[in-house]
Amino acid sequence: MKILDLSADFRLNNLNEYRRWYDTEHPMPEYLDDFTYGLTEIYRDEIKNSNYIANPGCFPTSILLALIPALKSKLINPPLVIDSKTGVSGAGRKLSLNTHFSEINENVKAYSVFGHRHLSEISQESNLIDDRFENKITFLAHLVPMTRGILTTIYADYNHDLIKNSDQLIYIYQDFYKDSPFIKIVEEPPSTKNTLGSNYCHIFPYIEPNSDKLILLSCIDNLVKGTAGQAVQNMNLMYGLEETEGILDLALYP
Amino acid sequence: MKILDLSADFRLNNLNEYRRWYDTEHPMPEYLDDFTYGLTEIYRDEIKNSNYIANPGCFPTSILLALIPALKSKLINPPLVIDSKTGVSGAGRKLSLNTHFSEINENVKAYSVFGHRHLSEISQESNLIDDRFENKITFLAHLVPMTRGILTTIYADYNHDLIKNSDQLIYIYQDFYKDSPFIKIVEEPPSTKNTLGSNYCHIFPYIEPNSDKLILLSCIDNLVKGTAGQAVQNMNLMYGLEETEGILDLALYP
Amino acid sequence: MKILDLSADFRLNNLNEYRRWYDTEHPMPEYLDDFTYGLTEIYRDEIKNSNYIANPGCFPTSILLALIPALKSKLINPPLVIDSKTGVSGAGRKLSLNTHFSEINENVKAYSVFGHRHLSEISQESNLIDDRFENKITFLAHLVPMTRGILTTIYADYNHDLIKNSDQLIYIYQDFYKDSPFIKIVEEPPSTKNTLGSNYCHIFPYIEPNSDKLILLSCIDNLVKGTAGQAVQNMNLMYGLEETEGILDLALYP
Amino acid sequence: MKILDLSADFRLNNLNEYRRWYDTEHPMPEYLDDFTYGLTEIYRDEIKNSNYIANPGCFPTSILLALIPALKSKLINPPLVIDSKTGVSGAGRKLSLNTHFSEINENVKAYSVFGHRHLSEISQESNLIDDRFENKITFLAHLVPMTRGILTTIYADYNHDLIKNSDQLIYIYQDFYKDSPFIKIVEEPPSTKNTLGSNYCHIFPYIEPNSDKLILLSCIDNLVKGTAGQAVQNMNLMYGLEETEGILDLALYP
Repeated sequence: MKILDLSADFRLNNLNEYRRWYDTEHPMPEYLDDFTYGLTEIYRDEIKNSNYIANPGCFPTSILLALIPALKSKLINPPLVIDSKTGVSGAGRKLSLNTHFSEINENVKAYSVFGHRHLSEISQESNLIDDRFENKITFLAHLVPMTRGILTTIYADYNHDLIKNSDQLIYIYQDFYKDSPFIKIVEEPPSTKNTLGSNYCHIFPYIEPNSDKLILLSCIDNLVKGTAGQAVQNMNLMYGLEETEGILDLALYP
Repeated sequence: MKILDLSADFRLNNLNEYRRWYDTEHPMPEYLDDFTYGLTEIYRDEIKNSNYIANPGCFPTSILLALIPALKSKLINPPLVIDSKTGVSGAGRKLSLNTHFSEINENVKAYSVFGHRHLSEISQESNLIDDRFENKITFLAHLVPMTRGILTTIYADYNHDLIKNSDQLIYIYQDFYKDSPFIKIVEEPPSTKNTLGSNYCHIFPYIEPNSDKLILLSCIDNLVKGTAGQAVQNMNLMYGLEETEGILDLALYP
Repeated sequence: MKILDLSADFRLNNLNEYRRWYDTEHPMPEYLDDFTYGLTEIYRDEIKNSNYIANPGCFPTSILLALIPALKSKLINPPLVIDSKTGVSGAGRKLSLNTHFSEINENVKAYSVFGHRHLSEISQESNLIDDRFENKITFLAHLVPMTRGILTTIYADYNHDLIKNSDQLIYIYQDFYKDSPFIKIVEEPPSTKNTLGSNYCHIFPYIEPNSDKLILLSCIDNLVKGTAGQAVQNMNLMYGLEETEGILDLALYP
Repeated sequence: MKILDLSADFRLNNLNEYRRWYDTEHPMPEYLDDFTYGLTEIYRDEIKNSNYIANPGCFPTSILLALIPALKSKLINPPLVIDSKTGVSGAGRKLSLNTHFSEINENVKAYSVFGHRHLSEISQESNLIDDRFENKITFLAHLVPMTRGILTTIYADYNHDLIKNSDQLIYIYQDFYKDSPFIKIVEEPPSTKNTLGSNYCHIFPYIEPNSDKLILLSCIDNLVKGTAGQAVQNMNLMYGLEETEGILDLALYP
């Protein structure tokens, strides 16, 4: 039997972190080791050979897909600032003043400012690659008046020995994702609407010339690549199907 | 005769900077020294005694009002990351695909990513207070689907000798602005809608505990405190009227 | 003691109608006769001399202000079609899927299609003037993705003896409301945003030439002229103050 | 060679009407007779056998699909009131203040109030079925703050001999469209979002009990069933393919 879990229960491999962010004891810690973190493009081989997948959160998907190529190539140094902007559907269908139309429309605000649960996933996966980033990631989520979509902006210092300009950066990213049909490295700032209704993630890496920072911009549809689309993508791999089966749609535009 | 200039022509005191960002020779450099930068709460006394005011840009207003108390008290160290989110009216009334409803609605994106003109104002005013910030400010503007409002998020390292916790930070900010009727230091994340239609600026300063960063959140209505409202506020001071005359409105909510 | 009731309890003067639409027995029928229906421009003199005001509903305000000049001058004949479009704040602050941002955004629908409670007010006031309209008014409310504002479109047959063209119609309306500071008869289709945040009602009466119908377009801000603003206007009259006291704001635009 | 024309040039079969509404002489009147009006569900057999298709306008599609079953069965009598609400993409990509985000957002208004070009198509097709409707159709278009979608509300008197209640009406509509895969007769008020991104048209016919009117509510995505989707549907038929080939998508929700 194969299981793909859309909840957060098997994403974290550290029980203390789980307790801290979810404020409860983990009900089935004995299964933790059996689950693969389902960030498809990063763990594709493990997913193919796994029977249990923990589907990632929507923010971590938008963030880690942009971040991991830089981490793996040691292009960037801590600390990191990650500023994400999300539509309202990320908050789910439950009713609260925070999802009431009149409160959201014509309004922008930050939320969970003292610590968003998804920081734990972002940190775990970053530290696995480069442990200098432990406690060096600032993540802040902002709610904007739209239904779907996440735009993430990541600010980092970079290694001038390895990166000379934006073109080189784009080349590294294109190469990293050359076998990933749902990742598109773009050469101008991406718009969330470019991915509306689709399983694509668009990433624009560049060097900001005035402050000489490396900036990563990425966007996804939180309800597709951020949840259900990535789930289908993972199930495709688990069952030996084409990774794109059933989810190769164009975005809806405008 | 008293002049208040809403354009950017007399905001920058360095002609090279003007040429670089506005791509033209300054037409009247001999008047530059006569103009006072009209960020009311910071230059109130100079404005009272000036006949020529350069009204600040909308982003610089939202950013500098949040930043300057920390700069003046040497609470923060370079570098700075400033991530602003603005409604569409900031782009003016001229027609372009970037203001077409169908392109903006249900969409978020960064723009002017290689350098927004307002960086020059932000840098000038920051460096006047603390020149360690020269070339150390990363500013990125994002367009969100609303008409009015700017939310700014500023990320900085802070001096642990001077700041122990968020409460202390809030106290410093409240004290700094104790005589400023349009600045409200708030104790939870502000929403742009809290300032919709009003001349208020709301600022929330706090320490993010997971990465130990100092974060400043501020919001204004870009068409009021960001432009016309601040202009009236400045004219009031220039003419010896009450600072609040004619602009003491509540925000429109929701 | 003067009372202004914002609820619907004293708007209807017929207990059967109250029972039918509000599905309960009226708790205080003995007070019904003491209340004046607070549609300011129509009942101004009665309001000045009344201690008890039933503030009208938001739809009836937008509809009756447009309709009554035509009814009183016998310009129109039954039946009437009234098609209103409202923002979400009309539904109040209570939480339901019908006010969830993700359900409302990028969506339009009709609601209460088998009978909206406000039909009872509209019918009562219309029939008082011209009883030929009894059971001859079709009213349908539509929810559009905005926070504030009601646009009402009224379609009617007209008396060709009395009306020859749109100019004449506009003249009749301007004359009817010549002493009403919050009514503006406009000469092009009004936008709800023209009244955003203000107590104004804009009305555009015209003859549609292709089908030779009389059409009335009106708009208000449902939270101002539709509720709280009209309440203040009524209280001003009850207390002998200027009708415009405290509510003479321009609309917020854009 | 097969031609499908998305423009309005071959929709009208009367040159005077063309001149009146498009304010120019028709450039190729000799081809008019060769074109079939491409309202798929109504002219399916003609489309299969035609080489030249004039694809209908977006408003006429939403209106005629709702109206024609009633016209063909003589269920309704003149006059008709048709009140449509459309998103902004119907205005195309050209730039004007009428498509500027800040003008559209938080705003509703009627437009082309003295006569919308699409009335000519609506009248032509209605009169072909029942010529009592000549000059008896009032059509008014309203712009609402969303990108895609048209909701149409049609108000009519009905023949009490033929229709006793809403259930019977729904049955007649279901039967009329029983072989039309893209028409869904629904039993509650449809939302434009129910058809977002899809080629479906949802229709809800019912009797409004208070005024005893027959009301037809319909919705489509103006960029799919209203334009490109219906074009593909027609091309499928012209080339002998399955009508649904390539366009059998679910709507995007929310």
